[in-house]
Formats: sequence, C-alpha cells, structure tokens
Amino acid sequence: MNHIGHLHIPARTIMTPGPVEVDPRVLKAMSSSILGQFDPQFTAIMNDTMGLLRKVLQTNNHWAFPIDGTSRAGIEAMLCSVIEEGDVVLIPSFGRFGGLLTEISERCGARVHSLVCEWGEVFDPEIIINEIKKVKPKVVAMVHGDTSTGRMQPLKEIGHACRELDVLLIVDAVATVAGTDVRTDEWMIDGLITGTQKCLSVPSGMAPITYNERIETILMQRKSIEKGLATQTQLSNNNFDRRIRSNYFDLSQLQDYWSPSRLNHHTEATSMLYGLYEGLRIILEEGLEQRFERHRINERALVAGIEAMGLRLFGNPNFKLPTVTCINIPEGVNGDAVRTMLLEDFGIEIASSFGPLHGKIWRVGTMGYSCQQRNILLTLGALEAVLLHYGANIHKGEAVQAALEVYKNVGRVHVK
Amino acid sequence: MNHIGHLHIPARTIMTPGPVEVDPRVLKAMSSSILGQFDPQFTAIMNDTMGLLRKVLQTNNHWAFPIDGTSRAGIEAMLCSVIEEGDVVLIPSFGRFGGLLTEISERCGARVHSLVCEWGEVFDPEIIINEIKKVKPKVVAMVHGDTSTGRMQPLKEIGHACRELDVLLIVDAVATVAGTDVRTDEWMIDGLITGTQKCLSVPSGMAPITYNERIETILMQRKSIEKGLATQTQLSNNNFDRRIRSNYFDLSQLQDYWSPSRLNHHTEATSMLYGLYEGLRIILEEGLEQRFERHRINERALVAGIEAMGLRLFGNPNFKLPTVTCINIPEGVNGDAVRTMLLEDFGIEIASSFGPLHGKIWRVGTMGYSCQQRNILLTLGALEAVLLHYGANIHKGEAVQAALEVYKNVGRVHVK
Repeated sequence: MNHIGHLHIPARTIMTPGPVEVDPRVLKAMSSSILGQFDPQFTAIMNDTMGLLRKVLQTNNHWAFPIDGTSRAGIEAMLCSVIEEGDVVLIPSFGRFGGLLTEISERCGARVHSLVCEWGEVFDPEIIINEIKKVKPKVVAMVHGDTSTGRMQPLKEIGHACRELDVLLIVDAVATVAGTDVRTDEWMIDGLITGTQKCLSVPSGMAPITYNERIETILMQRKSIEKGLATQTQLSNNNFDRRIRSNYFDLSQLQDYWSPSRLNHHTEATSMLYGLYEGLRIILEEGLEQRFERHRINERALVAGIEAMGLRLFGNPNFKLPTVTCINIPEGVNGDAVRTMLLEDFGIEIASSFGPLHGKIWRVGTMGYSCQQRNILLTLGALEAVLLHYGANIHKGEAVQAALEVYKNVGRVHVK
Repeated sequence: MNHIGHLHIPARTIMTPGPVEVDPRVLKAMSSSILGQFDPQFTAIMNDTMGLLRKVLQTNNHWAFPIDGTSRAGIEAMLCSVIEEGDVVLIPSFGRFGGLLTEISERCGARVHSLVCEWGEVFDPEIIINEIKKVKPKVVAMVHGDTSTGRMQPLKEIGHACRELDVLLIVDAVATVAGTDVRTDEWMIDGLITGTQKCLSVPSGMAPITYNERIETILMQRKSIEKGLATQTQLSNNNFDRRIRSNYFDLSQLQDYWSPSRLNHHTEATSMLYGLYEGLRIILEEGLEQRFERHRINERALVAGIEAMGLRLFGNPNFKLPTVTCINIPEGVNGDAVRTMLLEDFGIEIASSFGPLHGKIWRVGTMGYSCQQRNILLTLGALEAVLLHYGANIHKGEAVQAALEVYKNVGRVHVK
C-alpha cells in the first residue's frame, strides 16, 4: 500500500436484507458537527431519541435506547444482562438467527433447550407453549422475522402464554421493526432488540432495544457500579456473585448512562445517534401504518413480478416475512454468477443465503428507503435480463408489467 | 413528546479528552451512500483500512481492524478473547481507566492482581517488572495515557520485560494513538486498543485494535464457528470448553470476517468505516511525526497560558500526558460553574473529572482536530474571562499573550 486514494463509493441499488439504502436526510444529519457527550444539547437528543424509539417500538416501557454496536450487540446485551449461569432458556429456532440466539445464550452460561423446525416453516404457537410448560424456562428467546429463511413467527399467543406462565419473552425483531407491525407491549414482549441497518434505514452500527420492569428487576439485582465511579456505599451494595459478565453490555450500567444521573459508561456514538434520531423522525413523519402499507405494496409488486417471470418463491407463503422475499434459484442457473452480474453491470445487489439454503435461494430485501417502486421495477428488469443472458427458461417481458399492474391498482407508492 | 424538531447542533469548541471535533472531510466521507457489506468495493475499503491502521499503530501485525463499538468495546474484545477463567492478570493502575481494565478482566473471570499508584503519578517500570516476576501473570494489562489523571506511563522497558518473561502485554492506548508516539512493535506490545473519538478525530463508535501472533495463537485454540455457518468438520473442531464468552467480541470470529473468507459475523458499520478510513488518511497525509509535533506545540502554548494566568497544573510534570492538561481548580472557585459558563456563553467545552479528583481539577484536551492554535487561544481567553467574572485572583491579560509567544517562537502551527 503506497498510496491510499479518496473513498470510492459507486452508486448502488441495495436489495438485500441489510444493510440497505439510507435516506439522504439521515446521511446529512450524520455529517453534523460533534457535541460533547454531557453537553445539554446532546443529552437532549439522547432523551428525544428515547421518546422516538418508544413510538417506533410501540411500547410504553421507560427503557428504550440504542446499544452502540451492530444488531447482535443488542442481542448479546439483552441476553447477557438477563441470563445467569445455569439459567434455562428455551429457543424455538426456524432459521440461522435462531441459531445465533442459541450460540449467544450458551456463551452466557445458559442451559439451552432448542426447538427446531424445518427451514421455510414457522412454529405452531401451541407447540412452543407446550414446551414452555414442560421445560419451565426462565427465558424464551426467539426471532420474529428470520431473514435467512424469509419467515415470520406470530408472537401474540406466545407472548400471552409467557406472561401467564411467568416466563420472560425476549425477541430479536431486527428484520421487522419499522417494516411490518411489531407490537411490543400488546404482544407482551419483555425485551426486544432491533438494528439500524434494515427497515429503520440508518447505517449499521446501532442496536435499539427496549425492556420492561420485569427485566429491570433482574438488572437491579445484578447491578454493580465501576469502582472508579462508585461511592463507598454503592461499592458495598455491588453484587459481585451475580455480576453481569460483560461491562460493555451491562444494561444496569447503560440505563444509568441513559438516565438523568448520566453515570459515565462509554462515550455515546455521536454521529450514529444523529442518524438514528433523524431516521426515527422520518419513520414517524411517514406514519407507522403507512410505512407498513408501503412495505406490503412493494413486496406484492416484487412477488407479482417474480412469479410472472416463472420463478418460484421459497417457503411457506402463509408466514412469509414481508420484508424479505426468498426465490428458488432455477435449476441449471448459477446463483452467484447472476448476483455478480447484477452487481457489476447493473449496480444492483441482492443476497445469497446461509447453511442448508446456500446456493438454493436468492434473498431480496424490501426494507426502509430501499423499499420503493423505482427499486422494485429496476431490480425485476435487471434480474430478467441477467437470467436471459445466462439462458434461463423464463417468461420474457412479463415481470415489470406485472409489478406495474400492482402499482396501477393501488396508485403510486411514494417512498415516504 | 408531541413534536420532535430538526436536529439542533450548536457550534462548539470541544476541548475535552473526547469526543473531540472532527475534520469536515471525515463528516463528508460519512455522508456517502451505503455499500453492501460483501460488495467488493466495500471489502476493498475494509482491506485498505487495515493497511492504514497498521501505519498509524506503527505495527507490522497482520491483524489491525476496528471493533464496532466505542473504545471500551475494543478493550473488552481484546481481554475477553485472551483471558480464560482463572487466568492471572496483573494490572498496574494509575487512574480510572486502570480501574476499568480491572473491572473488565474480573468480569472475564480473571484473577486480578492490582498495583495501584497515587493519582497524578506513574510507575517506576522496575516496580512493575518485579511484580511480574513475583505474580507470574499470563497477561499484564495497562493504560498508556490515563485521561483521568493526565499521566502517561513509559512502556518500552515493561514491554521488553514481558516478552522476555513470556507474559502478554495488552495496552489501552485510547488517549495516545495519533496524538503522541505509540510504538506497538518496538515496545513489544502484544495487543493494543485505541478509540476513534480522541486523537484519531473520528466520531465515537469504533475501537481500532491490533494484535500479534502470540495472541492469535490463543484465539485459534479457543476458536469456534457459529452452527448456522459451520461445516460438519468445523463444528467437530469447535472447542466449547475454552470458547470465548462473548460472540460479539470473539476475535477468532472477527478475524475471519476481516479476512478473505469474509465469514459472516456482524454487519460492518458502513458509515463509521468510511469515517475511520478518511480520518486515517488525514493522519498519514499530515505525517505521524508532524502530528505529534503539532500536539506538543499546542500543549506547550496551552500550558504557558495556564501558568501565566497563575493557575497550577496537577500531577507529576515528568509524566504528563501531552494530549490532556489537568488544572487545579483555584480555591474558592466553583469548577462546575466555570465549565457551565464556558459552555453556555462561549460555546467552549472543557471537562470535569472522576472519583477522588472530582471537583478538584479541570481537564483540557488537546486532541486531533481540536488541537489547533485557534482553539487554544479562544479557550485561554474565555477561561480567563470566566474566572474574572467569578472573582478569581488571577493575572489579567497574560494567558493569551504567553501562548502567542510560544507560537511566535515555533511559527504558526496549522491543523494539518
């Protein structure tokens, strides 16, 4: 490396399940100058962000703030703050990210009971509820929408059962919040995690979370304050036996930092917080219901186009995740060659997949700012062209027309 | 909260030990549009960032990449990836951030031996070396520059002793890298952590780290691959007994993500990486030695001004951290009232302090983009005015003149 040139960022249409495109307003906000972390103007932005998050996460929980890290940082913060050595955790898993919950919980010292269903399906809530009664876990941890299979698990019945059985429900809603309905309080979710780089349409690097008093009670029992900051009384109150294993992810300390006491923990990520603030404002300006409707319509147009081309969708259609569309790669077609040509010649990115589905499906995201008519139409047209280039047996000229027909019927859908 | 307005970011001169002001070029880079995490254009930026980091961290280590979190995320990633339950860790501590190393190491399961010295002093290396011989730790973890006391610990002798005694040396260089000389390889530091929001002058939210093969060997022994991603052979090679307790901070997984195999872990924080890339470029364009010289000269001007005012510096001057100046608050002066007036009336921020020094000293940072003549002169003038306003007994009209005299003797120092 002799000379490092200017950043080179080519134009892209990003149709993956994240990271997705970001509204220029968010990028503009992120280019604002720095404020000190204890500057009252900055702590006001922190407080306002908590208020905005409560609305977007559909909760009255007091605690709603971002973890400074990517989505799995939020998941780990929630799990490691709640789970203690030997705790029983039930994890019903319907894709890769259920596996991630298992992996993180095990590392936290949990005794994990896994329930696994075939990729492409979700669980009958009754099966999970029966398992809860049998296993009697402290926590049920599960994914709401798993991008690896493009399925979404209904949570309401499970949430109500957990509350009734006095079990905590922790949900990874990284792929769903702000793209489809996620009712934290109404579904009785105790702890919920999302990420910035999907339907919130903010760059990757923050993981907003929320949790209720049932979880806060556990945090207070495990609380300890850093020696360099604690008074003598606080030090003697520290419960070292049950101390949370991570300092960075210790929610009992983080909530002090996000409270008027502003007890110093990390240095809040200034520019990312500006971006999150602006991204949340945009979501609420659009309106949650209108935003979900926009996601539904663009998904419908994409699916109509894909099917008109003669391609088939993967997975149980009754539980399709509205923000990710999984497409079976037609026989004889090299899935990676198609993705490479889409990226290199058309500047359009779609995703491959993980584990058992690798090489078998493509995944197309319709999330946040990327979820707009222009992107759907360009993607369908380009995908058709690339498939024809590789000699795939598809219906010519149908895909874009089918999508246009959807838009004609519902009227043009603006990005916000 | 009925209406959430536009982001309001007032103009500030930030003279704290972080977060500090950011070169507009970095903010501009951060407002670039998003690239997918596996887009070859993005992975090229990842690779180039590793190359830039090696130069700034003065190392030939292969592994040099940012952790997606604030500085203490980098510290925790390094410590929790190296420390196993029961490992002996020696932590010589000369301020709050030595305490943080203790706190994090304990949570990782270490048996910590602490050496503590009076705040305002550092250690005679011989004392540490003798303690290493006595305690025989696996790891010595210590801070290079502790912003809480404004002191800097010489590391060369300690590093050489650690290598000779086959002990790992892990250093928190958050407050020093890119502001003063930090010679990772020459001082035989095995693992080093820094942060973006201080002398790198990039917004808070990333923690660049580097480590050598001695640490990599431990990582490989503890390596395990996520179930959803691993082949059957890889799964059977997973060493669950010694598995790193954190998934997010598992350096054995992170280095796969930062290698050509690009094994999926988190989604790299796109915009923060753009900012880091541009910030590192600016540093190397200025030149490391020129940058250190700029920091020294501005520090000298600040100190000259402070002393000309009749104020006294805190701590042992022989080991002063060049990027932080600690000032004894004169008797009868309310330190917080002074800081508040500086911020509200002059838009200038200086810092208070922690623990035993709270209310006793102010801390003024001279870091990165904030470390420029204009800021030094404005801060001295404003501090004098505020102290006079509060009736402090200081020499009038001397501070700025003394600083100007320093600049006159060395010639004007440009920010880069």
